[in-house]
Amino acid sequence: MARDINPPRGMRDFLPSEKAKREHALGVIRRSYAAHGFDEIETPVMEDIARLHSGLGGDNEKLGFSVLRRGLDGDEVQAAAASGDILSLADLGLRFDLTVPLARFYASHRAELPGVFRAVQIAPVWRAERPQKGRYRQFVQCDIDIIGEAGQLAEVELITATAATLDALGLEDCTIRINDRRILTGILEYCGFDESRYAQALISIDKLDKIGADGVVAELAEQGPDAAAVLGGILAGLEPHLADGGVELTVAAITAILPPDIDSDAVADLDGLAHALTALPTGVKLRFDPTLVRGMGYYTGTIFEIAHPGSGSSVGGGGRYDGMIGRFLGQDVPACGFSIGFERVVDLLETDAATASDSVVLVHEQATGDALARLIAIKAELVAQGRRVRLEKRAKNLKPVLERAAASGFGSFALVPADARTAAELDLKPLA
Amino acid sequence: MARDINPPRGMRDFLPSEKAKREHALGVIRRSYAAHGFDEIETPVMEDIARLHSGLGGDNEKLGFSVLRRGLDGDEVQAAAASGDILSLADLGLRFDLTVPLARFYASHRAELPGVFRAVQIAPVWRAERPQKGRYRQFVQCDIDIIGEAGQLAEVELITATAATLDALGLEDCTIRINDRRILTGILEYCGFDESRYAQALISIDKLDKIGADGVVAELAEQGPDAAAVLGGILAGLEPHLADGGVELTVAAITAILPPDIDSDAVADLDGLAHALTALPTGVKLRFDPTLVRGMGYYTGTIFEIAHPGSGSSVGGGGRYDGMIGRFLGQDVPACGFSIGFERVVDLLETDAATASDSVVLVHEQATGDALARLIAIKAELVAQGRRVRLEKRAKNLKPVLERAAASGFGSFALVPADARTAAELDLKPLA
Repeated sequence: MARDINPPRGMRDFLPSEKAKREHALGVIRRSYAAHGFDEIETPVMEDIARLHSGLGGDNEKLGFSVLRRGLDGDEVQAAAASGDILSLADLGLRFDLTVPLARFYASHRAELPGVFRAVQIAPVWRAERPQKGRYRQFVQCDIDIIGEAGQLAEVELITATAATLDALGLEDCTIRINDRRILTGILEYCGFDESRYAQALISIDKLDKIGADGVVAELAEQGPDAAAVLGGILAGLEPHLADGGVELTVAAITAILPPDIDSDAVADLDGLAHALTALPTGVKLRFDPTLVRGMGYYTGTIFEIAHPGSGSSVGGGGRYDGMIGRFLGQDVPACGFSIGFERVVDLLETDAATASDSVVLVHEQATGDALARLIAIKAELVAQGRRVRLEKRAKNLKPVLERAAASGFGSFALVPADARTAAELDLKPLA
Repeated sequence: MARDINPPRGMRDFLPSEKAKREHALGVIRRSYAAHGFDEIETPVMEDIARLHSGLGGDNEKLGFSVLRRGLDGDEVQAAAASGDILSLADLGLRFDLTVPLARFYASHRAELPGVFRAVQIAPVWRAERPQKGRYRQFVQCDIDIIGEAGQLAEVELITATAATLDALGLEDCTIRINDRRILTGILEYCGFDESRYAQALISIDKLDKIGADGVVAELAEQGPDAAAVLGGILAGLEPHLADGGVELTVAAITAILPPDIDSDAVADLDGLAHALTALPTGVKLRFDPTLVRGMGYYTGTIFEIAHPGSGSSVGGGGRYDGMIGRFLGQDVPACGFSIGFERVVDLLETDAATASDSVVLVHEQATGDALARLIAIKAELVAQGRRVRLEKRAKNLKPVLERAAASGFGSFALVPADARTAAELDLKPLA
């Protein structure tokens, strides 16, 4: 029976106080992104299964929840068993990110959208990961993307809007670590890796904080022992510079920690980015970290990630992915996005429910007939005044009732006399 | 290719203007229900498949989207094919309503919830129905429920909050039609139907507006020809009284149109309900309609439905379902709920985007380096003033760009001089 009443594995129910906290944070995020000129859109939670397994989702594709075709008969199931193609039993799947649906959306509606399209998506995604602390099978992502802007204006607006949103949430001490895929490939070229080994090398560098420079060298020995040794030296040399999230985003600071002659266009772009962002009225720090990889293979240029001292892993990230929209559109369109991992952000926020002085608990006797009519009229009067009103029946011990109300943000209470006709007759008292 | 970029069958993408309209309406609904003392909760979109097929969902169970078990192997698929139990391939399903998840939630968290629990759920549900105008496979429901209140206070608070919410949405001319399951069974008893025929008789009466009194008699001839004839007479006699949604909710008006001696407790309760609701500051009409059935078998007392002249079918409904929570809890708990069909409501709302005078389009030249830094600083300055700001690159023909901005609610625009450093230097002009 106990098992029977729990939510599915790795998924959560939200009780009123937690739901209120989440909705408050979502409202802050929604208003902040709207103020920065982003337009909210929505797509269905499901997409065609072939689309979800087209290679754009990386490892997340393997974590998808697939939806059984409706009206399957025994023969079709038999055929799937015989062929071993079990996914043929499914025609739809739940999205595992908001990027694949956005690419599909943009391809479908391009004619109705502005030339430079600034999109917000705030919505749940699903991944059948092994549940663990802070990792859920249903979780909310907040993505902003700019499609159709090839210039740095996209990166600058995305970082500005994200930093302002982190500020608005009251999330202090955030650092946005920035890198460019071209710098990573420049380093690998410098080390002497064959281009066919780059993907594997990036996967290892992505694990640097877990396995250390020696671990990266060990993992990449097969890919080229000499190159791996050079890379190991570079990574070990970088370590002291990355303690504070990285170095300043200037040509001087960047070239000081990189091997010579790494992609100078990329370095100049990062310097330009920092210059465009100097006037930011935000407490968010910007840092260059040449070891930042970001897992997804579709990134083509700038990549960024949000770090916060209170969270062991990143609380958001993104980058430029100029090739991806073209996969749906049949024509390349530049694109750049930044995603906030809502679950991690909401865990970092203070939990205290705001107590509103305009919310009131009316404690009443059991009411029927005329008394019920009067009680409802008083409640309606207070609601019309802009208050939030909850009725509570009088109990022998009122204390726990009032404590619970205070905990859910109610600021005052009144005992309703059985013959009261208007709110003016109430004696409102503050809740402790 | 065209097929490839559409959302799944019966599901919709929402472009910015439609999404803004929806979010606005959801905000109104959320604030209104909070003001009336309801607490918002959330459950995962998926539930255990056995729970979804436990008989509480009525016909909706057949319309469920089922989720394939992860890691199925060929043998398991083979076994499902052999047994014909295709649903054994699924372990989870997408919810088809918000009531089954609420019952599961309440059973799981009862100890953490107040004795009388007022819940709001605003969330999508999924049904694999044949797509048709106004009927979708993913759609949003807004449910309020009161669990733990056996008295009429529950019905009164639900109807008050719903009526106030319809008012707040600006939805005029709504009628809430009210009936009581006990009156329906009283009529069937009066007609002489055997109790075992009640369920079938209610299904036919539910179709009255489509098949007429004669149709009901024809459908029920097998269930008892004499009883069906009596019922036909009653229904035909009621017809003129139902033109305006029904009659007044008073003992006098109700007994005037019913056969003699129909459940007098139920009639008195309806009269009491109307009395408690007399002071409602709302434009919503309340009417008694003894032919109102509501499809779900779990209703036990009062039932209600919202009618609007602009919608062919109901825009919401609910009722008392005292037996259902017990199915999960192993102990009966009184419950009553009212649901707004969000998709129908949003279709009835005006579509004009509110134009905010504090939203501004900045038309700028292609900007890099210092110019980009200045442009972003000016945008940040305006956002900090509380404005919504969108950047648009200068185009040969600005007209369509500005028209599009006006259509998405922007109120003014300014050309940004390449050397401008602060917002004070801008010449803001209203957008037509």
